[in-house]
Amino acid sequence: MATLHQVRPGAYFDSVVLMQLQRALASLPDVIDAGVVMGTAANLELLSQNELLPDDMQAAPEDLVIVVQSETKLAAEAALEQVDELLSRRRSTATREFRPKSLQSAAEMLPEAGWVLISVPGRYAAVVAREALELGKHVFLYSDNVSLDEEVELKARADELHLLMMGPDCGTAIVSGIGFGFANRVRRGRIGLVGASGTGLQSVSSRIHQMGSGVSQVIGTGSRDLKDSVAGAMATRGLDLLASDPETEVIVLVSKPPDPAVTARLLQRAWAAGKPTVISFIGYPPPAKQLGNLYFANSLIEAADLAVGLVGGEAPEIGAPELRAGARYLRGLFSGGTLAAEALAGFQAVLGPVFSNISEPRLSDPLISKEHSLLDLGEDEFTVGRLHPMIDNDLRIRRLRLEAADPQVGLILLDVVLGEGAHPDPASELAPAISEARAQHNIEVVVILVGTDEDPQNLEHQEQQLQQAGAVVFADTAAAVAYAVSPFITRELETVETDFLSRPVAAINVGLESFYDSLKAQGAEAVHVDWKPPAGGDQRLQAILQKMKN
Amino acid sequence: MATLHQVRPGAYFDSVVLMQLQRALASLPDVIDAGVVMGTAANLELLSQNELLPDDMQAAPEDLVIVVQSETKLAAEAALEQVDELLSRRRSTATREFRPKSLQSAAEMLPEAGWVLISVPGRYAAVVAREALELGKHVFLYSDNVSLDEEVELKARADELHLLMMGPDCGTAIVSGIGFGFANRVRRGRIGLVGASGTGLQSVSSRIHQMGSGVSQVIGTGSRDLKDSVAGAMATRGLDLLASDPETEVIVLVSKPPDPAVTARLLQRAWAAGKPTVISFIGYPPPAKQLGNLYFANSLIEAADLAVGLVGGEAPEIGAPELRAGARYLRGLFSGGTLAAEALAGFQAVLGPVFSNISEPRLSDPLISKEHSLLDLGEDEFTVGRLHPMIDNDLRIRRLRLEAADPQVGLILLDVVLGEGAHPDPASELAPAISEARAQHNIEVVVILVGTDEDPQNLEHQEQQLQQAGAVVFADTAAAVAYAVSPFITRELETVETDFLSRPVAAINVGLESFYDSLKAQGAEAVHVDWKPPAGGDQRLQAILQKMKN
Repeated sequence: MATLHQVRPGAYFDSVVLMQLQRALASLPDVIDAGVVMGTAANLELLSQNELLPDDMQAAPEDLVIVVQSETKLAAEAALEQVDELLSRRRSTATREFRPKSLQSAAEMLPEAGWVLISVPGRYAAVVAREALELGKHVFLYSDNVSLDEEVELKARADELHLLMMGPDCGTAIVSGIGFGFANRVRRGRIGLVGASGTGLQSVSSRIHQMGSGVSQVIGTGSRDLKDSVAGAMATRGLDLLASDPETEVIVLVSKPPDPAVTARLLQRAWAAGKPTVISFIGYPPPAKQLGNLYFANSLIEAADLAVGLVGGEAPEIGAPELRAGARYLRGLFSGGTLAAEALAGFQAVLGPVFSNISEPRLSDPLISKEHSLLDLGEDEFTVGRLHPMIDNDLRIRRLRLEAADPQVGLILLDVVLGEGAHPDPASELAPAISEARAQHNIEVVVILVGTDEDPQNLEHQEQQLQQAGAVVFADTAAAVAYAVSPFITRELETVETDFLSRPVAAINVGLESFYDSLKAQGAEAVHVDWKPPAGGDQRLQAILQKMKN
Repeated sequence: MATLHQVRPGAYFDSVVLMQLQRALASLPDVIDAGVVMGTAANLELLSQNELLPDDMQAAPEDLVIVVQSETKLAAEAALEQVDELLSRRRSTATREFRPKSLQSAAEMLPEAGWVLISVPGRYAAVVAREALELGKHVFLYSDNVSLDEEVELKARADELHLLMMGPDCGTAIVSGIGFGFANRVRRGRIGLVGASGTGLQSVSSRIHQMGSGVSQVIGTGSRDLKDSVAGAMATRGLDLLASDPETEVIVLVSKPPDPAVTARLLQRAWAAGKPTVISFIGYPPPAKQLGNLYFANSLIEAADLAVGLVGGEAPEIGAPELRAGARYLRGLFSGGTLAAEALAGFQAVLGPVFSNISEPRLSDPLISKEHSLLDLGEDEFTVGRLHPMIDNDLRIRRLRLEAADPQVGLILLDVVLGEGAHPDPASELAPAISEARAQHNIEVVVILVGTDEDPQNLEHQEQQLQQAGAVVFADTAAAVAYAVSPFITRELETVETDFLSRPVAAINVGLESFYDSLKAQGAEAVHVDWKPPAGGDQRLQAILQKMKN
């Protein structure tokens, strides 16, 4: 058995060519296996795992490495000798139609092109994307191995130009019925998707189709869009677009685990959009099943099913308490720890960090609230030598007075838990305190009331007393939270121009030819650029050229 | 205005007495406000916040602090003079019936008592609980401010004695229709609850009742049971009990955020129980909507609704692949990042940590799998100069062969994603490799297939090719994950004695008298212990007594 190799320094070939060369070599007579890769450490390790890494080989990441393993040395040599011919054969079949050499000339050939699809190797991708933006085109950037800094810059520039910048590492989009990159063929319909997740978007859109429904637009953002540094730039823009798009009735937002600060920002934006929005964030603890117009799915399939069920439905009514002038914060005063945790999760999902005595960010002194705050008054620190707040209302009433007297506070949320062991008539003590707080400070009071019709306190009478005092009473934490947060979130929507969505898709493709073939197969106008890296991929020469330019 | 105070060193009174004294003082003529607290830092700060902390006051945490604020100094003095009388008045009304002074004599009075309810102050609680366990009684320990070490010890001892040890800080339980601590009056039925969350259990049980259904048993564990150090000792026991209980058909497991290692252990146990089990962990990212017999709820209300819907239903069929002898691990080889993340979340939920190249714990070398492992082969590291695995199957097929050749591997999970841009016929390449791996290594292969009936690859034909190669094909990640993990989780159930659940509840109460009143009101046999701390609460004297004992 013989294993021979060739290293071609700084030679660029696109990855389809490399795959085809490897297959062609492997199918030659007496050849056992072949490897054709760029010489990165990971690729060399893979060669080694397949027993295709010769001991004496030296290669740099930008070198092309060709390895042939055969029965005889002669066969391996014969195979390697055919490399140039195999490469040129591939090229000649690929040029039956005229192909522009640059993005600029492609744009002149197809002036109606609104989109540029880019799938060149990562180290060249940012330059091409920048060029596309400057030409006024929306970008679908499939390439990965693009730096975070470049991503942030590209998305900022796209925002300035009012353009969409999907990616880098954007696997999937469907724009006005035409799939970009990897995209399933799905019915057109009323559900708009935006996601930092290619196969997530594919799974959800496929399921929507299988359920007999359809999609308006599928907007990819790139896998890192929901990281802190990118701050959901494209997801935000995508949400605003779907919110403005008259064809979109229900929105689905899909992502791998997003960073917490980005999550809150996006959910606030989705809240503002007002349309029913299904959230499917893998690895994210959902704060509720439903919070206002936000629906939380626990899987991609469930996200699709929820969205299909919401099409044609009514927008949920949340209600909107009006706050006194100058009020900016809400305060939660809880007796039940789990109710406190559940409400806190709801608040934090849409308001961002809320101070508390039960999780981060913590109040440095639980006796003094700060901005949005929520207290569990049943925590150990409050119960030394004192009855639990479900039995003794004194502590809560004193705190209620204190919070109401703070002019920055607009709304107070309480829980009232009935049953055996609890205070025999909690509303008889809480209602007068609520009445007084409302009369003196014009404050909104919201109550979560937990109990049954058989509880000794008389559930209905408790509810009546609280309502007569002016409190708004809910049986469900999520409904209470949605009502309580609503005055603290803007409903003002960033209106986005959506006219381009109603025009037929025309696109320029730079990179993988199969993406161009796919555009044409779907009936889109398209031009493929016969792209080559500067200086034929020779990085030393590229560096010299760059220096001469500057 | 005058504010006078008294400090009574080391005096013990239960917290009901303190509340009543405070109320009695506050209602005296010319008194504006009163404070009666144990002298902890938090309590003194609270007094200060209510402008009830005299500058000149000195108090230790075990001291009783009494403060009176009145219009005149005379009125304050008059109020303070009445303290002893108010305290003794309270005591005399409370002793109409005979009350044993010790747990021991209470147990002799009511030998059928299976339970001891304990709500004495935290620092005394562990000693009382230990005594109850040694008397062979199940314990409901309401007291908080008990140390973690004491909790671990008590639960270990209870396990040895085959007793339930609910708490410390256990707010709620309903045993055979009788509520302990804080508990709503709810219908008896077929849903069993176990939870590290008092108001969580109250909310869920109340909602179950309101929905017309009912509960078999409600088992509290104490708020810290699902922390690493306690390791879910009581939750595990509670699950086993409900799994063994013939009256329980559906289980609900409720908790504030549990520690991850404890979560996996509990979910494995719930899986083994086999009964439909609804999980409601606040702050926990659910891995699916449904995973085998586990159903994940996003709120307390939804947990109740899901449980009610599951009563009377069929147990889900999961299927059970049989592994070759010696096989201990599964391996996932994914092309789609989000599908990989979704599957990984499912695996980790029930198997505990699974190695991967996308989250912790990470494979130190992604080319070499370790124990249970899952790979996203579309990650940047694998795609330099190489086509995405959705276009080029070479990398995945090589890896599939490698994994199948590992005798410790029993099952391999793949995704196959169809659509525009993807390989025109992936099954034509994957199916032969699957066939070969199965023939050579008797390995199980499971496939998640994503696509639509309009995709260019022909969904049905893809499925057929994969099935003919011996793969089990699913459209849904969660169903594939449930099937794939099932041979790696024991179905053997820890059988627990449940006879005591069918006997009428009889209990001894130590601490809050209102809990005794509530037991009686519900028709339970009960005895209240007239408990006093050792040495009347004088800690110096207690220390001396303790020294003399040793």
